[in-house]
Amino acid sequence: MSLLIKNGNIITSTNEYQADIYVEDEKIVAIGENLDYKADETIDATGKYVFPGGVDEHVHYNSFNSLGYEHSHAALAGGTTTVGDFVMQPEGVSLKDSVINYKRDFVDGVSTPDYIFHGIIMDPSDETIEGLKDVPSVGVSSVKVFMAYKGMPFYVDDEWLFKALQNGKKAGVTIMIHAENADVVNIRTKQLIEEGKTDVKYFPKSRPVFAEAEATSRAVYMAKIADAPLFVVHVTNQKAAEVIRQAYNEGMSVYGETCTHYLMLNDEVFSKPNFEGAKYVCTPPIRPQSDVDFLWEAIDRGWLLAVGSDHCAIVGGFEEGKKKGLKDFSKIPPGSPGVQDRLNMMWTYGVEEGKISRQKFVEVCCTNPAKVCGVYPQKGDLIVGSDADIVVFNPEYKGTIKFEDALMGSDYSTYEGYEQKGRAEKVFLRGKLMAENGKFVGEKGIGKQAMSKPYAYSYSKFKEKESLDDNK
Amino acid sequence: MSLLIKNGNIITSTNEYQADIYVEDEKIVAIGENLDYKADETIDATGKYVFPGGVDEHVHYNSFNSLGYEHSHAALAGGTTTVGDFVMQPEGVSLKDSVINYKRDFVDGVSTPDYIFHGIIMDPSDETIEGLKDVPSVGVSSVKVFMAYKGMPFYVDDEWLFKALQNGKKAGVTIMIHAENADVVNIRTKQLIEEGKTDVKYFPKSRPVFAEAEATSRAVYMAKIADAPLFVVHVTNQKAAEVIRQAYNEGMSVYGETCTHYLMLNDEVFSKPNFEGAKYVCTPPIRPQSDVDFLWEAIDRGWLLAVGSDHCAIVGGFEEGKKKGLKDFSKIPPGSPGVQDRLNMMWTYGVEEGKISRQKFVEVCCTNPAKVCGVYPQKGDLIVGSDADIVVFNPEYKGTIKFEDALMGSDYSTYEGYEQKGRAEKVFLRGKLMAENGKFVGEKGIGKQAMSKPYAYSYSKFKEKESLDDNK
Amino acid sequence: MSLLIKNGNIITSTNEYQADIYVEDEKIVAIGENLDYKADETIDATGKYVFPGGVDEHVHYNSFNSLGYEHSHAALAGGTTTVGDFVMQPEGVSLKDSVINYKRDFVDGVSTPDYIFHGIIMDPSDETIEGLKDVPSVGVSSVKVFMAYKGMPFYVDDEWLFKALQNGKKAGVTIMIHAENADVVNIRTKQLIEEGKTDVKYFPKSRPVFAEAEATSRAVYMAKIADAPLFVVHVTNQKAAEVIRQAYNEGMSVYGETCTHYLMLNDEVFSKPNFEGAKYVCTPPIRPQSDVDFLWEAIDRGWLLAVGSDHCAIVGGFEEGKKKGLKDFSKIPPGSPGVQDRLNMMWTYGVEEGKISRQKFVEVCCTNPAKVCGVYPQKGDLIVGSDADIVVFNPEYKGTIKFEDALMGSDYSTYEGYEQKGRAEKVFLRGKLMAENGKFVGEKGIGKQAMSKPYAYSYSKFKEKESLDDNK
Amino acid sequence: MSLLIKNGNIITSTNEYQADIYVEDEKIVAIGENLDYKADETIDATGKYVFPGGVDEHVHYNSFNSLGYEHSHAALAGGTTTVGDFVMQPEGVSLKDSVINYKRDFVDGVSTPDYIFHGIIMDPSDETIEGLKDVPSVGVSSVKVFMAYKGMPFYVDDEWLFKALQNGKKAGVTIMIHAENADVVNIRTKQLIEEGKTDVKYFPKSRPVFAEAEATSRAVYMAKIADAPLFVVHVTNQKAAEVIRQAYNEGMSVYGETCTHYLMLNDEVFSKPNFEGAKYVCTPPIRPQSDVDFLWEAIDRGWLLAVGSDHCAIVGGFEEGKKKGLKDFSKIPPGSPGVQDRLNMMWTYGVEEGKISRQKFVEVCCTNPAKVCGVYPQKGDLIVGSDADIVVFNPEYKGTIKFEDALMGSDYSTYEGYEQKGRAEKVFLRGKLMAENGKFVGEKGIGKQAMSKPYAYSYSKFKEKESLDDNK
Repeated sequence: MSLLIKNGNIITSTNEYQADIYVEDEKIVAIGENLDYKADETIDATGKYVFPGGVDEHVHYNSFNSLGYEHSHAALAGGTTTVGDFVMQPEGVSLKDSVINYKRDFVDGVSTPDYIFHGIIMDPSDETIEGLKDVPSVGVSSVKVFMAYKGMPFYVDDEWLFKALQNGKKAGVTIMIHAENADVVNIRTKQLIEEGKTDVKYFPKSRPVFAEAEATSRAVYMAKIADAPLFVVHVTNQKAAEVIRQAYNEGMSVYGETCTHYLMLNDEVFSKPNFEGAKYVCTPPIRPQSDVDFLWEAIDRGWLLAVGSDHCAIVGGFEEGKKKGLKDFSKIPPGSPGVQDRLNMMWTYGVEEGKISRQKFVEVCCTNPAKVCGVYPQKGDLIVGSDADIVVFNPEYKGTIKFEDALMGSDYSTYEGYEQKGRAEKVFLRGKLMAENGKFVGEKGIGKQAMSKPYAYSYSKFKEKESLDDNK
Repeated sequence: MSLLIKNGNIITSTNEYQADIYVEDEKIVAIGENLDYKADETIDATGKYVFPGGVDEHVHYNSFNSLGYEHSHAALAGGTTTVGDFVMQPEGVSLKDSVINYKRDFVDGVSTPDYIFHGIIMDPSDETIEGLKDVPSVGVSSVKVFMAYKGMPFYVDDEWLFKALQNGKKAGVTIMIHAENADVVNIRTKQLIEEGKTDVKYFPKSRPVFAEAEATSRAVYMAKIADAPLFVVHVTNQKAAEVIRQAYNEGMSVYGETCTHYLMLNDEVFSKPNFEGAKYVCTPPIRPQSDVDFLWEAIDRGWLLAVGSDHCAIVGGFEEGKKKGLKDFSKIPPGSPGVQDRLNMMWTYGVEEGKISRQKFVEVCCTNPAKVCGVYPQKGDLIVGSDADIVVFNPEYKGTIKFEDALMGSDYSTYEGYEQKGRAEKVFLRGKLMAENGKFVGEKGIGKQAMSKPYAYSYSKFKEKESLDDNK
Repeated sequence: MSLLIKNGNIITSTNEYQADIYVEDEKIVAIGENLDYKADETIDATGKYVFPGGVDEHVHYNSFNSLGYEHSHAALAGGTTTVGDFVMQPEGVSLKDSVINYKRDFVDGVSTPDYIFHGIIMDPSDETIEGLKDVPSVGVSSVKVFMAYKGMPFYVDDEWLFKALQNGKKAGVTIMIHAENADVVNIRTKQLIEEGKTDVKYFPKSRPVFAEAEATSRAVYMAKIADAPLFVVHVTNQKAAEVIRQAYNEGMSVYGETCTHYLMLNDEVFSKPNFEGAKYVCTPPIRPQSDVDFLWEAIDRGWLLAVGSDHCAIVGGFEEGKKKGLKDFSKIPPGSPGVQDRLNMMWTYGVEEGKISRQKFVEVCCTNPAKVCGVYPQKGDLIVGSDADIVVFNPEYKGTIKFEDALMGSDYSTYEGYEQKGRAEKVFLRGKLMAENGKFVGEKGIGKQAMSKPYAYSYSKFKEKESLDDNK
Repeated sequence: MSLLIKNGNIITSTNEYQADIYVEDEKIVAIGENLDYKADETIDATGKYVFPGGVDEHVHYNSFNSLGYEHSHAALAGGTTTVGDFVMQPEGVSLKDSVINYKRDFVDGVSTPDYIFHGIIMDPSDETIEGLKDVPSVGVSSVKVFMAYKGMPFYVDDEWLFKALQNGKKAGVTIMIHAENADVVNIRTKQLIEEGKTDVKYFPKSRPVFAEAEATSRAVYMAKIADAPLFVVHVTNQKAAEVIRQAYNEGMSVYGETCTHYLMLNDEVFSKPNFEGAKYVCTPPIRPQSDVDFLWEAIDRGWLLAVGSDHCAIVGGFEEGKKKGLKDFSKIPPGSPGVQDRLNMMWTYGVEEGKISRQKFVEVCCTNPAKVCGVYPQKGDLIVGSDADIVVFNPEYKGTIKFEDALMGSDYSTYEGYEQKGRAEKVFLRGKLMAENGKFVGEKGIGKQAMSKPYAYSYSKFKEKESLDDNK
């Protein structure tokens, strides 16, 4: 099976040029002018952009109240060919076995896009921590720790975060954190509810910017002491982003991502009528416009590396899911569907509005996620030898985001009514056509695991400056 | 009973001038040139400095393994007329009752210097937090929270620190913190011991600089969210001090003190032979010389406000107390005797070496401690109406710190063999002569509580900028 | 001649207490409770505040188009007993002789308040620079350098600023700077005029915030290389103030003042109708409200030390003076009358509005100016031995600033119509009553020079950290 | 003429992969696995790295006492295929005509590598500034301004720098600065000479770190006011680099490069015996090791973008040129030969010592210089359509830098005796073989101008945030 894409304007994270791409056996084999390979299929991409399939390093399936992989073809309809999912750790099961079991039970043969796994520490113990060294053997090189949600099984306190940093480092496993001060969030939530402030509009007040900045800062200090890299997921605001930038400026290997909704929406969404604000409840919350503006600058200037969707289509959607919190915002299950819309939103509101270049779009949506997850350059770039995950993008399309086009299984669309400029005309996963013009046209369940290599991007500038024997 | 001190060079935190001081009924009644009051006692202070009695805002008696008030006359021998002690809270007893009981059982009639009480939260509960509002009624306006020592009864986690900040603020009670990340300290300690690094020289490695800076930073974030003032005790290093300075620069009411030993010693003391390093074990640890240098600059430039002794004469001293940790540094009871030497060390190594001015000496050793504790200007200054706590200081004296002169009840002297320039020739407590030339000559047990007023120094620049209804 | 002020609430920069003050031979002789001296005059100050006479370290008489000392009694009517004036240097005349001549020709016997002299370098040459060492002999310890006004005789370029810093340092003479980038101001002015933007509302655009911050930063670097202290006059905005704070935080001896009008007014004044904006034209310009807010915080938190008036009553006032710039804002002579209103404005809009404490009011209006000018504690405090420059202040007064009360010789009042709370009921200069309730009642022309001592406040934390032989 | 390079490990600024490269008509036509083009020449690059020809954005020929283009083939021997030279502006000649004349008289037919031109403003006038808009028409998009060297024809004061920033911006011309405070340098030099400190070891003391940081900071402020991008050449130290980083962090488009010698040498070279220190005299000076360490981190972390050689082979070399300053360091002509050694030093001491990755090596030595100069992707990358400037690099070579191998026309080698690991085995310029194993083997004088496009890299994040009508 071979494929020849002719005359497209190839965009990568660093350049843009016109050339043909030839694909064979799921891989890119050649890039050149007027390539004269005979291919099973030839596409004329004249006037189109050709860029790597999107890599969404942050999605949730089959966990935290989210729908499962049966809806994962939505990613491809939106141009995303690889997703990074988080694997919950049942009590008493090692991180490695959690991955094996999860893959077998929920993912293999079900996932349509290729997938990457991140672990989640949910049963903190010396055994679990010790087991960090084993996760690379099942293709995992990043493990998440929840600093928020005290009282929930996935909450992890400083003791285990610190040990995870110490041990993850040795194994080349990047520790990722959900950064919010658990106590502040719990107390503020309780106080608001007790004061009768139960409406969804009070939700952001329960999770202040400084609670997120604090936890980010704390994890940075711990990484400093443990002499380990750190990756902060879903950074929502300037204060937290500045903590990360400052750490980097001090020579640390600390990085972060933000997510589509923190760039597209501001905290006014929580004041929408008819409880609609609940659709946008996710944690940490969507922030005021000044933070939104800063986040665009942060990705443009490299202070944050990547943009994930944090896709989490709640079981029951708005009507059966979100409305559980109708009388108490703290009962709204957090999460929004987004994997299908990420590239479209970033192109329309990023590239087309001049906030980021086309190169930066590829960098934060494709290349850097792949690097962070340890699957670069198999994923995230268009070079000879890479997987033939390719988007042929028509910049002329103009449309509107509508729920009826959503394949994510929810009953609402997070970006309903937003303008869309440009669209993935064709989406190839390892050379196979999977979507055309926003419609899924491929075969479901063919996704494979992209095996994450340890010592990935967060280790690239890593130097052991502070050893245990320093008095630091 | 009246007293006239003639012709001294009066030093306060802001100026220096020659004048007579007239005292009646324990108070300063007049300051002037050639005052012609008839006094019961007249002192010629020509060629001497006259400054306010020292206020040591940080001492420990009868708690944490420390000896009790029967040794408190040592303070006066060293020129300190007022001490600020920390009152432990027994389980189930309110902070207010803890103070009442402690005063009755251990202090009243025993303390020789005047004393100030700080509370300590040791039984964190909604009742305790609620009770913060009652402590001003017993003359207390500062309450300490231990962020370190997880596993010990006085450890307080983020939940209760945050609530203490919220509630203390309303009552004008300043929350003080011992800032060290409890988990990092516990893990590092355990790891060192397991690695066989049990010698006292490994002690500082168990409590890294960044563990202190982290806790300081965390408390600052919490104070930001709670919109409350904060006071950080015994700051030991540049990183932590910079966190405080940064908070102040951002408009917060965050302040800190350091202690004598962090200015006088560096971490080489832990490598002394014959387990002598144990004498200097206190928490947080004494730091490298670069931090020592920074701390001198920090007090000179106003980034830290005060210098306490953190006096804590361990029961059993070196031989019976400290040696409990001979085979395991973590079993060394922390604390060193110091209340008697604070002023002498600060004068000799601060003023005489040109690191701080005489005014700054008075500011950090007398005036600011009184302000922070809410007992200014009753204590800490020489103005009409203040308590006649007066030191007549002979700058010509030259000597050496010797254990045989120590009255603190321990079996060693922290500053043994240090040079001493200048000495309190006479020390008056409320007009009564208590010490002469380093010897205690007064009456024991006459100390009175100096009642701390709420909304003290840490509230002076306090503005409610971040209300609970802000999304911050 | 003796004076007894009874029962006032004495306010100094650090405290507040009730006592009597006894004055003899122009000096404060005693402070005490119920002093029973027999005095030529006794004042009952019950219910009144008693604070040191104002020290305005920044005024202009007889220079830069300003009116002369015949109007200087206005200062006393407003509670200011000492003014710091700038002495222009004629070409070919040494700084020292400039002072001698100026004093003889314009000041001696004419000035009503006591006065301090600052030099101004206007004839930069090796002789002038060399002559810095001689100015202490005529009671001068601060010399100003204009970094702005290229093309005017008082402009001084980097060469001479650097040499002034090098040489002033050795003599204990503090270099003061007017900080604006001369070229940027000239170019922006020329461009605006060429674009037809000649109205006074364009004036602030000709002198941008960053032009001031740049010059401030440049002078700081030069002080760093020259290893010299630096004092920045009339700081108008956050960016420039932050440069000063940053230098201080890096261990340098860099300080600054702001002025009344930068605290009281914002840049909307330039849009007043009928050319009224010209009344407020001074350099650097008055800034937006966000800078005004920051400046209040800056004085409260100690990032700026003092508040001067930069009093400069233009010859011809508004009608004959300011209107020269009716068709070209660059022709408006800069300067506004303000020496009479400084204390009233700072009390009403600072103390009464809760922005600063009474102690801070005294600190920035009296004590720190005296320290910076090297005349402390002769001026700026109420201690035994100080000059009896005393304000008895009635906090109950309520009124309005009106031009008819102004004694400054201009034809308008900068703060016309502003509310006034509190008023100097009596103002004593060296024990002599000079003003009552805003009216001048004393003898004109009795002012004496307060001799500035070298190595004043800006040297107090000065340490020679960077010697010439360092590669820095 | 076609060329096929087989099986090399292609390194670009972002990735590394094995593939063949096919070249035709001076351009890269295809990259792929097992390409089966028939080529005039086929190279087996198995086990070799293949990366873009070096782009040295900072060299001097035929100006400032430097030798001319007849020695420019040295660049190719060292793997550099494109050089960026600075064109002096004779008095009365426009920048555009300066370029036309210079190219005709000195470069065309003489230069062996391809070349880029930067302008230099030497005759500052409104005509010259106005003429900035014309330089893109002769392929120039960057113009340098010397802030140092007051008294020399190329010195430019703030007035013209500011106007250059204002006008360059409109034309898409990047203003580059040589940043040193001219007055400080002149005064310090004069003072040292007068003190008899004439030896070359005093040279660095004449040009302090803070003089460079000051000028950098000043230019940043001016760029802020002019709302223009800025590029700082030859950054030598942490302080200056931090000014640039800070500007970038505040949203400005301010960038910088450093040079090989600032990374390879420290200021101890000036103390070499026999006047050898003079060989390393360049401006700004080589700095202490702590700055060297910081600079490596700065390029690794992206705080500085590029590494040029600042090649300047002085006429007369050491014996006839440098020795002019034997009795007065200020007479030593500044500059060192370096274009031939840049890639070798960066590989050996950067890549091989683990300071930077191979990707970073390509980024700072090839890709970013091309971007900054507006010639990307024609130069500086290996993508389809780029010029076939290709280095086939043998990582196994081990040798030593020796003067006898130098082709730069000088009489000494800056890096004499330094180890060298790896070597350019073959260097192609637009497909033509120019050098093999350090020897020049091509045709001289075939270099062509690479036409710089305006609005290059320094404009890529440029946003007009501060318009002239803001009061900023």
